[in-house]
Amino acid sequence: MSVRHLDRLLEPTSVCVIGASDRAGSVGATVWRNLRAGAFAGAIHAVNPRHATLDGVACHAAVADLPTAPDLAVICTPPGTVAGLIEQLGRLGTRAAIVMTAGLDSAEKQAVLDAARPHLLRILGPNCIGLLTPRLGLNASFAHTDALAGDLAFISQSGALVTAVLDWARARRIGFSTLVSLGERADVDFGDILDHLASDEHTRSILLYIESIESPRKFMSAARAAARNKPVIVVKAGRAGKGVKAEASHTGALAGSDIVFDAAIRRAGMLRVDTLQDLFMAAETLARFGGNRDDTLTIMTNGGGGGVMAADAAALAGVTLGDLSEATRARLDAALPPTWSHANPVDIIGDAPAHRYVDTLQALLDDRASGAVLFLHAPTAIVRSDEVARACAPLVREARDRVMACWLGDAAVAEARSVFAEAGVADYETPEEAVRAFAMLGTYSAHHRVRNQIQPQPVDKFRPKRTNC
Amino acid sequence: MSVRHLDRLLEPTSVCVIGASDRAGSVGATVWRNLRAGAFAGAIHAVNPRHATLDGVACHAAVADLPTAPDLAVICTPPGTVAGLIEQLGRLGTRAAIVMTAGLDSAEKQAVLDAARPHLLRILGPNCIGLLTPRLGLNASFAHTDALAGDLAFISQSGALVTAVLDWARARRIGFSTLVSLGERADVDFGDILDHLASDEHTRSILLYIESIESPRKFMSAARAAARNKPVIVVKAGRAGKGVKAEASHTGALAGSDIVFDAAIRRAGMLRVDTLQDLFMAAETLARFGGNRDDTLTIMTNGGGGGVMAADAAALAGVTLGDLSEATRARLDAALPPTWSHANPVDIIGDAPAHRYVDTLQALLDDRASGAVLFLHAPTAIVRSDEVARACAPLVREARDRVMACWLGDAAVAEARSVFAEAGVADYETPEEAVRAFAMLGTYSAHHRVRNQIQPQPVDKFRPKRTNC
Repeated sequence: MSVRHLDRLLEPTSVCVIGASDRAGSVGATVWRNLRAGAFAGAIHAVNPRHATLDGVACHAAVADLPTAPDLAVICTPPGTVAGLIEQLGRLGTRAAIVMTAGLDSAEKQAVLDAARPHLLRILGPNCIGLLTPRLGLNASFAHTDALAGDLAFISQSGALVTAVLDWARARRIGFSTLVSLGERADVDFGDILDHLASDEHTRSILLYIESIESPRKFMSAARAAARNKPVIVVKAGRAGKGVKAEASHTGALAGSDIVFDAAIRRAGMLRVDTLQDLFMAAETLARFGGNRDDTLTIMTNGGGGGVMAADAAALAGVTLGDLSEATRARLDAALPPTWSHANPVDIIGDAPAHRYVDTLQALLDDRASGAVLFLHAPTAIVRSDEVARACAPLVREARDRVMACWLGDAAVAEARSVFAEAGVADYETPEEAVRAFAMLGTYSAHHRVRNQIQPQPVDKFRPKRTNC
Repeated sequence: MSVRHLDRLLEPTSVCVIGASDRAGSVGATVWRNLRAGAFAGAIHAVNPRHATLDGVACHAAVADLPTAPDLAVICTPPGTVAGLIEQLGRLGTRAAIVMTAGLDSAEKQAVLDAARPHLLRILGPNCIGLLTPRLGLNASFAHTDALAGDLAFISQSGALVTAVLDWARARRIGFSTLVSLGERADVDFGDILDHLASDEHTRSILLYIESIESPRKFMSAARAAARNKPVIVVKAGRAGKGVKAEASHTGALAGSDIVFDAAIRRAGMLRVDTLQDLFMAAETLARFGGNRDDTLTIMTNGGGGGVMAADAAALAGVTLGDLSEATRARLDAALPPTWSHANPVDIIGDAPAHRYVDTLQALLDDRASGAVLFLHAPTAIVRSDEVARACAPLVREARDRVMACWLGDAAVAEARSVFAEAGVADYETPEEAVRAFAMLGTYSAHHRVRNQIQPQPVDKFRPKRTNC
């Protein structure tokens, strides 16, 4: 395991695209367009003997023609060309390359590694869609869109899931420190990137999509180090029967024993989730609500049904719904109609105008004993959802590490969701999902406590065994 | 239990709103607007002594002034007025009323029932948001939107969940035969509506949101009858600890034992789901994919990761992924690049242009042994998702009872989702959700088989016991 030159890969100051092109729908054209479209401040070069210029930028015929060695080279040329290019790049002084090319056979892969080794040149891929480091305006990928800057990192064995996460996150204004598609992991693997991100000040939490791990010892060491510093959430796919088969045909590796992996994840202090939905949920939770440290949850709702579903989910997930303090109950008595629920869940009744939401939220947030607040809303004809959202926005913006939101519905609440997203509040599709996200944070803290209880072995009673020799 | 006059409630030919108003944000104004906005072909009357006209329609001062007895009266006036109004309506000849008014105490509720009984006038509510029968253009509710016509029925103890389901379904173009908010169920309850819908030719499947059942025997009898004819899916909330407490404070009833309820649901041939997400999923599945009878699933995907997640989910849910037949494999060999997965999941590789999706889908659908097909797509920069969707639309429209879709992502696939929704194809957020929906259909069929195995006791060996007397 080594983090050597990973900074060149993830934070390059100059990039060169080999096989850059303007042929619509080609990888070379997409990478070139993505790189140029971003706000990347460093130099960008193109290499392709078939073009003199691309978009008005000089295009070099060969690597040898490049004016200086780029930090990072992105290679989109046929399998047989890659090893030769790596050798030329290494001699020039480049220390990192992304190989997007698919279909390299094992001899070609070995040739690439052999060409890279003398120069300690790091290879991401082959057969990957590249990486994005949004704070640098760097989109060195052939994804269909770019990412917002933020403090989540996503490292994926599947390129398709990078594009899915990108698209999903953009709509929710969730930002990333980096997104990396590992592809076939000829060189750079999960362990390397984890090791780098463990001490990356721009990354507050890490999401992993794993199908298989080739170097478990290296992975575990990096995982432990990373999870000590920040939350690490893992989806490990290929866990069951046919899943293993599908995965074996995907990136050419066999899944390890799922039970062993499960235990290892827990031991390393990472959290495993089962589905893409849970991965998305974890991303939302960590990005927005990650700072929360509350043990109890208070539910406020404008409809009994949502409150009941949330309370059910809390009971099933072992989440404690706090009792309202006398003082808070008195404040709510003054602010709410007499038919309010007088308990947690706090049902403010379906005819609630916007100020009733504000008064309730204020009363709950003023009382630390309320813990975190799940804000639940079903559409009504009495008041527009966006009006409620705007009225509550200043409050939730201040308390975003204590508020989770669930706007039930679709078009009628789209604007409200957007207002809350703008305010930085975690938002969930259903009350059950919000409660599970809250429980997940709790589970995560529990993992951490378990790991931190494992103390290093005391050595003060150790005496070396002496032998007379 | 009685279905008497429920036709007047659910399929009235004339409606009167008592307490109709033009005061923005009031229940009376919202109901009046909803009723007028729909395409309801029957007569619509307003009663309110404070208005001479409403929107240019004559407004009557009292029930006695109505020109004829409306089939259905919608009452939005204060608690103390309701019983008197019911009596007047009954005398006039009206046989169904929706009482939206909240806050009736038990004496007032009893007075309402006493006033209704001599006329066999049926009461929906009190404290409900009303009902919609979209095929008649009837929106007798104070929901914020209306519904599309379709063949799903949704019956809910929570009004808020009716608005949430309405909003969610509208965005997905899912239609309803009827949506009913039961409120406090002074008269009309789950058993009554189920009994009516069991033989309603416009309703193909039924969704229930239940917190508590007051007349279990009546409910079970109706449920058995309904579930014999069509799928009945149930969310039963208030199942656990605090959930029970929240629900007790909601519509004034105590939850029964959850285990008993669970067994009863199974015995009646209904299917229980746990979360709102599952209820939505069930609605999507029944509305679009409900006719499917396949045992096996074939996954096609443009990205390995999604395929692995789907195969994992299938293994966990006990869904069989069929093996590809020799003939289909040969057709796919001819249509796909050599790097395709050569197995189920069928990975058509991330660089797939639109025609590759079409060729693959055609090959799978032409082979009955493929069973149902899960169409999985992650966004790529190679081809626009909506282009893929449009190319596949004619095929999937024809085979919509064999295709489930999952367009991973958000904005980049929104148009594609819309094209598939237009084609009537079931669409899911994640591969896991699609697989669970498929498994749900299987579970449902299994329930049905179990129920149908319970034969009536043979009576041919029965001999009456004779006594000499």
